[in-house]
Amino acid sequence: MEIEHTPEACTKSLMAVRDTLDVLNGKWKLPIIIALDSGPKRFNELERMITGITPKLLSKELRDLEANEFITRTVYPTTPVKIEYALTGYSGTLSRVIAEMRDWGIQHRKKITGR
Amino acid sequence: MEIEHTPEACTKSLMAVRDTLDVLNGKWKLPIIIALDSGPKRFNELERMITGITPKLLSKELRDLEANEFITRTVYPTTPVKIEYALTGYSGTLSRVIAEMRDWGIQHRKKITGR
Repeated sequence: MEIEHTPEACTKSLMAVRDTLDVLNGKWKLPIIIALDSGPKRFNELERMITGITPKLLSKELRDLEANEFITRTVYPTTPVKIEYALTGYSGTLSRVIAEMRDWGIQHRKKITGR
Repeated sequence: MEIEHTPEACTKSLMAVRDTLDVLNGKWKLPIIIALDSGPKRFNELERMITGITPKLLSKELRDLEANEFITRTVYPTTPVKIEYALTGYSGTLSRVIAEMRDWGIQHRKKITGR
């Protein structure tokens, strides 16, 4: 593992990874960010893309993501009103974390299923 | 973001990242793996290194990590009995995920605190 082995470096790694886990807590935030990566989406589109999430949970996670400046929520004054969610530039900082987690998940599934 | 923008690629990414999140669920598994990266540890050492975790939670997380083959639990038949936890080779596959999460956490803390 590429982590230096001094107690200070270990503590620094622990704190930094815990920060990341706190911000990305739960199993829905990264999937929502991935779903939005192909462009702005409406609530129902997101709900369809992310199997298993309830509307109540999706609303809460969208609020959290907006508060952490990963997404924007735009209200279009049409009739009926149209609301769209989109990624901010800042969410792009997560691309390598997401890419590594995707690659790890793929190799883990191969290990578990043997194919 | 480096994720291809076809619906199939998006679905594949979503599934793979959800697999990773399922295996690493919660906020304690990665910190335990990081703590063990500097060598085998006993229960009390781990508890000291990972602030905020309760003995009950640490026991549960260690059982999960052992079941997922990230760690081993070795019982030494001394008096009193000595039990040590250590990383398996497989846990090394997580090094890039951990490194990216650590780097992201460091830059996020700088963004939030401005230093």
